[in-house]
Amino acid sequence: VQLHFDQLARKSDSRILLVVLDGLGGLPRGDRTELEAAATPNLDRQARHSALGCLIPVEQGITPGSGPAHVSLFGYDPVEFQVGRGVLECLGVGLDPGPKDLCARANFANISGGVIADRRAKKENQRMATALCQELCAGLQKAIPCIGDVKVVIRSGEEHRFAVMFQGPGLGEKGLNDSDPGHEHEAPEEVKSSEPDAQKSARLANEFIRLCGERLAGRAQANGVLLRGLGLAPVWPSMAERFKLKPACIAAYPMYRGLARLVGMSILPAGSTWESGVETLALHKSEHDFFFLHLKELDKAGEDGDFDRKVELIERFDEEILPQLLGLGFDVLCITGDHSTPAVMRSHSWHYVPVMLHSGYVRPQVSVDHFGERDCLAGSLGRLYSKQLMAVLLAHAGKLGKFGA
Amino acid sequence: VQLHFDQLARKSDSRILLVVLDGLGGLPRGDRTELEAAATPNLDRQARHSALGCLIPVEQGITPGSGPAHVSLFGYDPVEFQVGRGVLECLGVGLDPGPKDLCARANFANISGGVIADRRAKKENQRMATALCQELCAGLQKAIPCIGDVKVVIRSGEEHRFAVMFQGPGLGEKGLNDSDPGHEHEAPEEVKSSEPDAQKSARLANEFIRLCGERLAGRAQANGVLLRGLGLAPVWPSMAERFKLKPACIAAYPMYRGLARLVGMSILPAGSTWESGVETLALHKSEHDFFFLHLKELDKAGEDGDFDRKVELIERFDEEILPQLLGLGFDVLCITGDHSTPAVMRSHSWHYVPVMLHSGYVRPQVSVDHFGERDCLAGSLGRLYSKQLMAVLLAHAGKLGKFGA
Repeated sequence: VQLHFDQLARKSDSRILLVVLDGLGGLPRGDRTELEAAATPNLDRQARHSALGCLIPVEQGITPGSGPAHVSLFGYDPVEFQVGRGVLECLGVGLDPGPKDLCARANFANISGGVIADRRAKKENQRMATALCQELCAGLQKAIPCIGDVKVVIRSGEEHRFAVMFQGPGLGEKGLNDSDPGHEHEAPEEVKSSEPDAQKSARLANEFIRLCGERLAGRAQANGVLLRGLGLAPVWPSMAERFKLKPACIAAYPMYRGLARLVGMSILPAGSTWESGVETLALHKSEHDFFFLHLKELDKAGEDGDFDRKVELIERFDEEILPQLLGLGFDVLCITGDHSTPAVMRSHSWHYVPVMLHSGYVRPQVSVDHFGERDCLAGSLGRLYSKQLMAVLLAHAGKLGKFGA
Repeated sequence: VQLHFDQLARKSDSRILLVVLDGLGGLPRGDRTELEAAATPNLDRQARHSALGCLIPVEQGITPGSGPAHVSLFGYDPVEFQVGRGVLECLGVGLDPGPKDLCARANFANISGGVIADRRAKKENQRMATALCQELCAGLQKAIPCIGDVKVVIRSGEEHRFAVMFQGPGLGEKGLNDSDPGHEHEAPEEVKSSEPDAQKSARLANEFIRLCGERLAGRAQANGVLLRGLGLAPVWPSMAERFKLKPACIAAYPMYRGLARLVGMSILPAGSTWESGVETLALHKSEHDFFFLHLKELDKAGEDGDFDRKVELIERFDEEILPQLLGLGFDVLCITGDHSTPAVMRSHSWHYVPVMLHSGYVRPQVSVDHFGERDCLAGSLGRLYSKQLMAVLLAHAGKLGKFGA
């Protein structure tokens, strides 16, 4: 038995801004985390009249990928609402798969004598240049515009990776395996499914792989293609249905726009800089009642193991972006991350994410010196799952009615 | 929809040590709990670079028995994975019941004129001496080696209590009642079940009680036997299956070894002293990647209401045991309890249990003076259910992959 937010949610004039600093949470280098080490006078001042807390992205101990980490911030259970890897790859390269489009994550590989010699088609142990991937993808797209009644859409990603989307009638997804066996020195797998409604998809995938092989034949490295994560884009209830919101997304990176599209957000132009995102926000602020502003760069600094760069980015947010956001007068302003990306780990992690929520109705905590992981431990929001945050935002915005009489 | 840890868990070289100080949590006598009153310089120093937190053994307000309190620390939902009382009693006396063996908790009683005069067969209001229980059990075992095609295994416990295990074909457990009505001045119940596959078990239990009565006839006090908690040992997925661990148990008390066996741990020799347990750990530390070290004595001091003894035991752990454990170089070291046993209550309690986790990837808290209940309140692990701890241990040991892309 669950609470149904759609029955409690109500329209109001108030507006919510959710700022996601991707990978915000960190771990100490010496004594202080990235956020604790950063000089952030504006965040600190804001924190003193905000409610602080700690978000658990998915579950205790679980390190989330970007998909589940965002889906939960949007108010959806990340275990119930999962996005397949093929779909995520298509979203990431900027494709817009519909619910009947079969998506796959693809990559160039070297196949020799029927077995996979190199799953990444490296040359002298160097990964493929993205420019070469783009060139090969353009060639494949030209050679394979369609297979039978199915349109084929190919788009290059980074290095050896690309995405494929198949658009046509009768494409099921159940039980489809990867053609990539996950190991070298093995033959690629034939794509199969025991489900009748995925037979066409399996045949299509195998034919696509065969046609790519024909086209790439004779190349020294990238002479074959492997497919993974074959699946259809999910059909989910929208944020409008679930929360009676009119939500909009401002994100420079395609994957986050794609995830936002899955929950029915309008996608606003973001440009490539933080400033252009804020400009868009200022321009459209009266047209929506929920804005998701995604800033990617902290996560990249964390993944690169660049503690100082992550600190600098936090300081730049504090100095240049936050004052502008505060000037826009949102009723609820929430600043958090989708997950932690500690520079010392060079990867996403399971650690809780600091969160700061400001509205006219927040409970204060004992005292706050600084917006950082340690201060958030004693915050008045306490510790909550990311998927629970949306209800807290709605409540602080006066957008949730009373439960029961 | 649930997270499946078996799909995220992965093998690695790192090693985890979980130290369970049974009944660790306490309540203040005057101002300080047992753990707060103890002088623990080593624990305090360790706490300063560890993550602290509070464990809820089963659920808010719920006082757990030893079974659920440990099952949850092993990463199993204690409500889903329950151990019957008969099975727990058999484990506690050192029997090793298999999944087809019917277990029961038994005790000597005084039966007079067909009704139970004393459920504990006391003499001049004194409980039976354990030595007498052992003598009576040896006699019964000799007189009743089997019943039909079923082998009977009898082993004495403390005072009037003993355990019985029936080993043979066709023993079901469904719907079996206790022969002990739970009150005096009533006749013992006939064991029955409405389930066809438990009919043989019911007949067997009644015949066992009848044979014991024949053998004990004429004794002034212990002239009958009552059975409770009839049931089969459960078959659970192992920790190897669920978490890809190769776990081992070091526990001086049989029941804890038995619980560890139910989740597939290897049982290492523990000796009877804390020092011998540590020696075993040192000797076998490279053979497993997860160790459960159980130290019982704090719980006994708590149950005895001996606050000072519990303090002394904590101080002895701090001075003599912890330095040796730290010297073994585990990647993840977690020190906690299975539940609280406040000396002022002389019993298990529902209060949260302090937990300290050390690894290279812990989030610090604001400051720690002392490893105690109050410092744990502001700990960076926050408050979590004991059943969630395992994922946190695995994460800190690099043994959990990313969820979603």
